[in-house]
Amino acid sequence: MLDTTSVSPRALLARRKPGFSLEQAFYTSQEIFDLDLEAIFFRTWIYVGVEPDVPDEGDVMVVDIGRASVLILRDDDGEIRAFHNVCRHRGARIVHDEKSSVGKLVCKYHAWTYDLDGKLLRAEHMGADFDTSCHGLKPVHLKSVEGLLFICLADEAPADIDDLAEKMGPYLKPHAIRDTKVAHQVDLIELGNWKITMENNRECYHCAGNHPELTIPLFEYGFGFSPESMDETKAKEAHRYECMVDDLHGEWEGSGFPSKEIDHLDDRVTGFRTQRLPIDRAGESQTLDTKVASTKLLGELTEAKMGGLSFWTQPNSWHHFMSDHIVTFSVIPLSPDRTLLRTKWLVHKDAVEGVDYDLKRLTEVWIATNDQDGTLVGYQHSGVKSPAYEPGPYSPYTEGLVEKFVNWYCLRLADHLG
Amino acid sequence: MLDTTSVSPRALLARRKPGFSLEQAFYTSQEIFDLDLEAIFFRTWIYVGVEPDVPDEGDVMVVDIGRASVLILRDDDGEIRAFHNVCRHRGARIVHDEKSSVGKLVCKYHAWTYDLDGKLLRAEHMGADFDTSCHGLKPVHLKSVEGLLFICLADEAPADIDDLAEKMGPYLKPHAIRDTKVAHQVDLIELGNWKITMENNRECYHCAGNHPELTIPLFEYGFGFSPESMDETKAKEAHRYECMVDDLHGEWEGSGFPSKEIDHLDDRVTGFRTQRLPIDRAGESQTLDTKVASTKLLGELTEAKMGGLSFWTQPNSWHHFMSDHIVTFSVIPLSPDRTLLRTKWLVHKDAVEGVDYDLKRLTEVWIATNDQDGTLVGYQHSGVKSPAYEPGPYSPYTEGLVEKFVNWYCLRLADHLG
Amino acid sequence: MLDTTSVSPRALLARRKPGFSLEQAFYTSQEIFDLDLEAIFFRTWIYVGVEPDVPDEGDVMVVDIGRASVLILRDDDGEIRAFHNVCRHRGARIVHDEKSSVGKLVCKYHAWTYDLDGKLLRAEHMGADFDTSCHGLKPVHLKSVEGLLFICLADEAPADIDDLAEKMGPYLKPHAIRDTKVAHQVDLIELGNWKITMENNRECYHCAGNHPELTIPLFEYGFGFSPESMDETKAKEAHRYECMVDDLHGEWEGSGFPSKEIDHLDDRVTGFRTQRLPIDRAGESQTLDTKVASTKLLGELTEAKMGGLSFWTQPNSWHHFMSDHIVTFSVIPLSPDRTLLRTKWLVHKDAVEGVDYDLKRLTEVWIATNDQDGTLVGYQHSGVKSPAYEPGPYSPYTEGLVEKFVNWYCLRLADHLG
Repeated sequence: MLDTTSVSPRALLARRKPGFSLEQAFYTSQEIFDLDLEAIFFRTWIYVGVEPDVPDEGDVMVVDIGRASVLILRDDDGEIRAFHNVCRHRGARIVHDEKSSVGKLVCKYHAWTYDLDGKLLRAEHMGADFDTSCHGLKPVHLKSVEGLLFICLADEAPADIDDLAEKMGPYLKPHAIRDTKVAHQVDLIELGNWKITMENNRECYHCAGNHPELTIPLFEYGFGFSPESMDETKAKEAHRYECMVDDLHGEWEGSGFPSKEIDHLDDRVTGFRTQRLPIDRAGESQTLDTKVASTKLLGELTEAKMGGLSFWTQPNSWHHFMSDHIVTFSVIPLSPDRTLLRTKWLVHKDAVEGVDYDLKRLTEVWIATNDQDGTLVGYQHSGVKSPAYEPGPYSPYTEGLVEKFVNWYCLRLADHLG
Repeated sequence: MLDTTSVSPRALLARRKPGFSLEQAFYTSQEIFDLDLEAIFFRTWIYVGVEPDVPDEGDVMVVDIGRASVLILRDDDGEIRAFHNVCRHRGARIVHDEKSSVGKLVCKYHAWTYDLDGKLLRAEHMGADFDTSCHGLKPVHLKSVEGLLFICLADEAPADIDDLAEKMGPYLKPHAIRDTKVAHQVDLIELGNWKITMENNRECYHCAGNHPELTIPLFEYGFGFSPESMDETKAKEAHRYECMVDDLHGEWEGSGFPSKEIDHLDDRVTGFRTQRLPIDRAGESQTLDTKVASTKLLGELTEAKMGGLSFWTQPNSWHHFMSDHIVTFSVIPLSPDRTLLRTKWLVHKDAVEGVDYDLKRLTEVWIATNDQDGTLVGYQHSGVKSPAYEPGPYSPYTEGLVEKFVNWYCLRLADHLG
Repeated sequence: MLDTTSVSPRALLARRKPGFSLEQAFYTSQEIFDLDLEAIFFRTWIYVGVEPDVPDEGDVMVVDIGRASVLILRDDDGEIRAFHNVCRHRGARIVHDEKSSVGKLVCKYHAWTYDLDGKLLRAEHMGADFDTSCHGLKPVHLKSVEGLLFICLADEAPADIDDLAEKMGPYLKPHAIRDTKVAHQVDLIELGNWKITMENNRECYHCAGNHPELTIPLFEYGFGFSPESMDETKAKEAHRYECMVDDLHGEWEGSGFPSKEIDHLDDRVTGFRTQRLPIDRAGESQTLDTKVASTKLLGELTEAKMGGLSFWTQPNSWHHFMSDHIVTFSVIPLSPDRTLLRTKWLVHKDAVEGVDYDLKRLTEVWIATNDQDGTLVGYQHSGVKSPAYEPGPYSPYTEGLVEKFVNWYCLRLADHLG
């Protein structure tokens, strides 16, 4: 057994074996969990929600990341801003519900009152020498990428989010995120390290055996395969699939819908990847019958068969954009062995439940898939913590994006440790 | 953000900024929590209850402080004593219920039997060489201040408790604590560090916005205010209040009831403060209608309008003595983020529930107030743990006693660290 | 108070006082708990169950020890084997239920498939360079002592298990463990350190005051006593008991049933002790009426009055073999203050519930006794964690086996620390 408990994170990074899962301490140690928050979640851009989470002036959403609590709010001028949810007097948390609407931000403890731009407006009994201008709420960097909200808790945020926004803009714009509403949200706590949750998301090697619902809309060949182990029939099918993707990409791009893969998963701080993928059978949406779940298509779209635009970001999100709805996922570490997976389903803001869409049809594929993945994450975590665990090999054909996630993670950690 | 996690307690103390709340580590770190127990709760006098908790010979009360468990009991000669609740054989806890009555103290494990003065009376099978006189229960220092019980877990207890007792005697005596009974007790677990619970108690800046019940008997001006921000009407009201306090103090002291402020909150090991404060409206008691809750007045008292004698001790108690009842509070740290607040309501020992007093009327103001304070303590703790938290300024007008608590705390810690 | 928190395990061992319970840190510190797992539970032979736990080919039992999870299974050739329950791909736990039956071992995550001898049979998408022969399940040492299963998680297992097996064979064989079935199992979590659970098992000083059921079949004098404190009547009774044991041992051994004490509790790595002890009253079994609980006697036995053969092993088991049934106990540490006690009741494999035995009669003595012991373990642990605790003296007459357990434990720890 390799001893990982007494080895420094720096030494563990140095002896990392590419193509293999990480050593145990990366998944189980409290020290590395704290380092992950410090080096990753408090430094890089973290996906936390969408503009429709705070649709109106005065709407506030609270997002907790580790010990930090952040207010995402829409100011009176319609601008979305982010602040630390900490009063500048004695440090009380100011807002407690996940979603609320306010006129001003008033700390319940001693009624210190802040404007929606963070300025301290009022603090009683503080005396003549007290300068309110030095006691505004501490701001948090916020970037909206076509309505997807990213925050960064560092003093200086990585600048390459602008390039991500520029590249992703044309892909995302047709799905008109700002004109959607959150139809449903589910918070699932998975019993594993957040990196195990991310690795699970970055491959579909496990799909055939575990996701009977998700494999209805998704093509088997869309996520890699080993050519060596295929018989002739399968090889032909795989080839046909690749031709179809090429054809559809040409068709979609011709109609003004960018679809081709962009992959910057491990070559920059704000790593991401996108690709529009065909949907099987009726070809419309990630539903059990592969037809749209909402009859009111998003934005200006008129064609239901748009495939599914997938968008993955490091370290903590993935998203699927269809013609009729969007499913968006955010991962937040809670402890070395507990991770929050927050899933939101978005439909056109004017779509009416029971008329334009049925909530069960809209959500059932991913509710089932998340539950299955949560179980698998728990299985992996409970085995990884064994003294008998040693890093195992990733499949060169089906786990390439897992490897890229791990690459990115190790680069960030190494960069932080200097 | 200030880094407090890798800084030693000594260095944190050295860079403390007077007039500001403490740095994060003081509220959240396990290391400092352990130090608090060691330097404060295992060294200074801790308030734990009242003589009426063990009214009769053989009555035993168990009080747990950190990992320590202490027996407070009344011996056959009527003397109150304190011992560690640990058998001298293999260390088993001896008494398990909070309150019980016993003839002898018998450890359930192997029936080692101790007298109420702690002496080991019987231990089977130990052989001829075994000396029972070396295996008595370990004593704990105990001091009754007019019936208020303080214990000290140190080998040598601070001697200045005697001065406290001498000074407080004349204030407390008229309320005849020894002739009361515990009419009710509530244990509330607050989700914050014990120092946040104490800071909350040491100011009423938060009262107006949070305590609709408590502000009925309590005067707005009794807990400090900022003269600068007052209009002429308010300034006159405040002046009138101060004159009234002076008048009442003169009147009460003339009748033999000491009332003037004594403040030794941060100039000695056994810090304390007292003052008799007027009660608003009917002026009798801390009840919703400000009239007495118990018609049987305490001790020899014949006048209901005695105001409320408040008594605060460092590190862990406060008390309000009215003509008809007493409310007494004890704070026990449970973990860095959990604190026990134990509240007891005392009435004349001969008062009969349903005849002389109604339990709801007696307790409703402080049950509501404690719940409100518990919520505020949770708010502060959950904000203070954020990496964005930094110490904020105390009001020079309304948070002076908070500052004194923090002064005292820092002095004790510095003294312990040497 | 002795300071044990800042003292190294090595120094604590060096200053150990023979004849006294251990210092606090041995019972409460996380560091020593981790050391216990490393030095004891991952190095020595650990009792985990019986062959009848996996009666048929393909039967699998999962046993968790600390962070390790072990599969105990019966291969297609009837051989019992043990493997780490960790997939060699990305480390997922493979089997999740405590008991199951399988054809092959298939990891649910990516369907890696292992034979019952641990060989990797199938792993999709791994490419031509992947060598399945390097990715079999990691084996765990397993030894069956007449049907009692011991595992060792070390690379090299202590060899003296063979001597234990040789010495214990003649004692155990008549009870034909392999021809029994598990009639009942209870998992009890005791709120104390595992060594407190073991100490509790190694003496009956506490029996008279705590075990009204167990003291029906067990003789008072079977577990030591202080001759000095006995009156003449008691001394005669004790002498009569010793004569009876001698007589019975002669009688049983004459009939081919080894009965005399063997004690190697603290003179070897694989410490153990055995002795056949008479049963009081009807003399048949550890039941409330001391008659057999199962009318189908074990193996070839024809005589019910065989007494009870007790067998104790270091660090974690004890067992009672009667003519009609067996009770077998396994102790697994969960955390410094939580311990799993797993009890199994075995009867002849052909005994039919409701016909040959009644489950309540079979189990009621030890269910009650375990519950009583669990309470006592909790009492001791909660007292031992007090700062006032100091090691107390063991009785030289009734706690000799406790001392031997502690000796063995300290020797193993010292040996590991080098």
